[in-house]
Amino acid sequence: MQAPSPVRVGVLGAGNVGGALARLLVDDTAAIEARTGLRLELARLAVRDLSRRRPLALPPGCLTDDAGSVVTDSGVDIVVEAIGGVEPARTLILEALKAGKPVVTANKELLADAGAELFEAAAAAGVDLLFEAAVAGAIPLIRPLRESLAGERITRIMGIVNGTTNYILTRMAEGGATYGDALSEAQELGYAERDPTADVEGFDAAAKAAILASIAFGQTVVAGDVHREGISAVTADDIAFAHRLGYVVKLLAIAEQDEPEGEVAVRVHPAMIPSTHPLAAVRDSFNAVFIEGDAVGELMLYGRGAGGRPTASAVLGDVLDAAHNLRAGGPGRAPALARSQVRPMPELTSQYYVTMEVEDRPGVLAAVAGAFAEEGVSIRSMEQVGLGDEARMVFITHTALERAMQQCLERLRRLDAVETVGGLIRVIEDD
Amino acid sequence: MQAPSPVRVGVLGAGNVGGALARLLVDDTAAIEARTGLRLELARLAVRDLSRRRPLALPPGCLTDDAGSVVTDSGVDIVVEAIGGVEPARTLILEALKAGKPVVTANKELLADAGAELFEAAAAAGVDLLFEAAVAGAIPLIRPLRESLAGERITRIMGIVNGTTNYILTRMAEGGATYGDALSEAQELGYAERDPTADVEGFDAAAKAAILASIAFGQTVVAGDVHREGISAVTADDIAFAHRLGYVVKLLAIAEQDEPEGEVAVRVHPAMIPSTHPLAAVRDSFNAVFIEGDAVGELMLYGRGAGGRPTASAVLGDVLDAAHNLRAGGPGRAPALARSQVRPMPELTSQYYVTMEVEDRPGVLAAVAGAFAEEGVSIRSMEQVGLGDEARMVFITHTALERAMQQCLERLRRLDAVETVGGLIRVIEDD
Repeated sequence: MQAPSPVRVGVLGAGNVGGALARLLVDDTAAIEARTGLRLELARLAVRDLSRRRPLALPPGCLTDDAGSVVTDSGVDIVVEAIGGVEPARTLILEALKAGKPVVTANKELLADAGAELFEAAAAAGVDLLFEAAVAGAIPLIRPLRESLAGERITRIMGIVNGTTNYILTRMAEGGATYGDALSEAQELGYAERDPTADVEGFDAAAKAAILASIAFGQTVVAGDVHREGISAVTADDIAFAHRLGYVVKLLAIAEQDEPEGEVAVRVHPAMIPSTHPLAAVRDSFNAVFIEGDAVGELMLYGRGAGGRPTASAVLGDVLDAAHNLRAGGPGRAPALARSQVRPMPELTSQYYVTMEVEDRPGVLAAVAGAFAEEGVSIRSMEQVGLGDEARMVFITHTALERAMQQCLERLRRLDAVETVGGLIRVIEDD
Repeated sequence: MQAPSPVRVGVLGAGNVGGALARLLVDDTAAIEARTGLRLELARLAVRDLSRRRPLALPPGCLTDDAGSVVTDSGVDIVVEAIGGVEPARTLILEALKAGKPVVTANKELLADAGAELFEAAAAAGVDLLFEAAVAGAIPLIRPLRESLAGERITRIMGIVNGTTNYILTRMAEGGATYGDALSEAQELGYAERDPTADVEGFDAAAKAAILASIAFGQTVVAGDVHREGISAVTADDIAFAHRLGYVVKLLAIAEQDEPEGEVAVRVHPAMIPSTHPLAAVRDSFNAVFIEGDAVGELMLYGRGAGGRPTASAVLGDVLDAAHNLRAGGPGRAPALARSQVRPMPELTSQYYVTMEVEDRPGVLAAVAGAFAEEGVSIRSMEQVGLGDEARMVFITHTALERAMQQCLERLRRLDAVETVGGLIRVIEDD
């Protein structure tokens, strides 16, 4: 029997993910064929610097520094975009799709920005655009959402989708580190960039939240639709207090939809979750996504959110899917996205944890409690700790409207007796 | 535009899962079509007792007590088998496949027994045989293993795949209940059957372990290949001791393969896992499957392992997959299974926890330690508690061969000073 012809893969970018994928394609060809019946071939690899020595033994003509030549190469069946960023990735992907080639990408930034345009181009060309690795790296997430849960009405997704911030919060909770020390440690270990803004201020998580919301609710949610708060204001005291009350602090990406085809609410912020919640056990730089659906109940998918080999594994799964669909003669199921209807943050509700430093004198509690009362925010618990002439008050509220809570904070800040108001942390209860 | 013709579903069985699926098919038709573009129709529903009143409004001719007529009905496009057990389910599925109809089943018992025969029949007929709900109910597991991880070399799967035993072990750990009390409670809540043997002795988990091993390693592992021990010998003392040392006791289904295409080891037994391991946080009747792969690292998939609606949600995902493939003109990817090569239990290695009641007199420890030494089993830690004239010794060993450990137990039982030897619990360490 004649061996089937290989499926030829063109990879754009040989960094962390592209390099790991190229290695899998070269080293594991036989093993992949044994498992799947599909023979993959690394046909082209576009790199930035041709002069750099590479540890891979590549066939002549494989390496190029002209990414544009790969997407139009008739010797390439599937294109993997592993460059990152918006341009030139966007243009290259659109060209590949226009040339009728399925595209696999892990580019969260691009998808959160121009996903709708890319999905439309893929649908128009009748080819696959797959992106399993764009959210939560190695975790099978997009495919389960699109396929296993195709018939399910998803009501809420809560994800720990940024490994850097989860590592920092884990060190603060388990090692008693301050935010600054934990961040320095993450930087030394290579988990955090020298400029950690994209991670610690929630930009990375917001891009992933937009993609998750788009897929779960079938709307074109973009990163700009996502309310975003980072973890830089979370203190060791907040975490210690949460622990005492049976909570863990995590940076969560949350996407909710109360009614089918209704408004979606998408946000990223630190949250206190009960220590018995499955997300509370997600430690170090791991990611996890907790999904709630009408019939399915509660699901959680856990794994590595980053790293070259884990991410390349997810990309490889997509490449095999695209290869199978090429052989079968048509693309798989693509998301059909409606225009997004995003509920603004002030209209959401939550319970809240809020701390403030106040003067320790008679009448202060009455004034503070009055500020809550005037905005209709009901207090669930209060604790006061003396600090010399000052005191720290820690409140947890009942469920309140975000707008009311923000107005309450404004009122508190204007009170003479209140020195500072600490960061607000939303409190999530088990249902 | 003319509406596309519906995909007609024939459901065999209207119990817990079949009934919930029928309700989803009747109530959610429009919502499912909006999300997926596929219009599903409950064409036939085979029940045991036609005279029973049903809460569903079904079209005339839909209900029948002749399951055989459904699988050959030309008005049925996809067959869902929700009867359970080996026969008549096996014959009905084979007939449906022979008639060219894709089949969806959640029947773990049948798949663990006759999976290879069914997969071959499906391949011969060129139609889908899907079974996402057969293992870990609502958790997307089979599809991620078959598709997302298609290119991945899986090295180990460890699953909490039986909700009843996990509920019992959770109550013993968190409520300090005895095994008997926790079992009674599970029975009162409907989590355990009046005859709990299939759950507590690991038969249910063993069937699921066989299916998992088959899919992960591409071999026809059957339930009889699985080494099986239940939880009925686990005591409150074992759990308390585990807790003190930072472990949690879980009933695990474990499937391992050291080398690609090599022997697989498949077993179900209680195990101690570190309390920081993600599986340790899986409480109550939830299920979870922890997957380790060469490139992907560690993954965990968590959710409801049973229950009518969660299981029906997973079945519905399969029905939509089969419907999509019917429209696309061909089946999805099917597992190609090789003959199984199962490594016998005596050849596996583990660390072990073992307790024994001994006479409290000089020389006993020397005799006991001698028994370990003669079998080459190295002791990692020992603790002795006085109990009047007797004492309890608790050992944790270093990694040893199962055969050596079993011979060591034999030796210990023959020692005069040893009254009883307690159950063996394998100890699993983080790598």
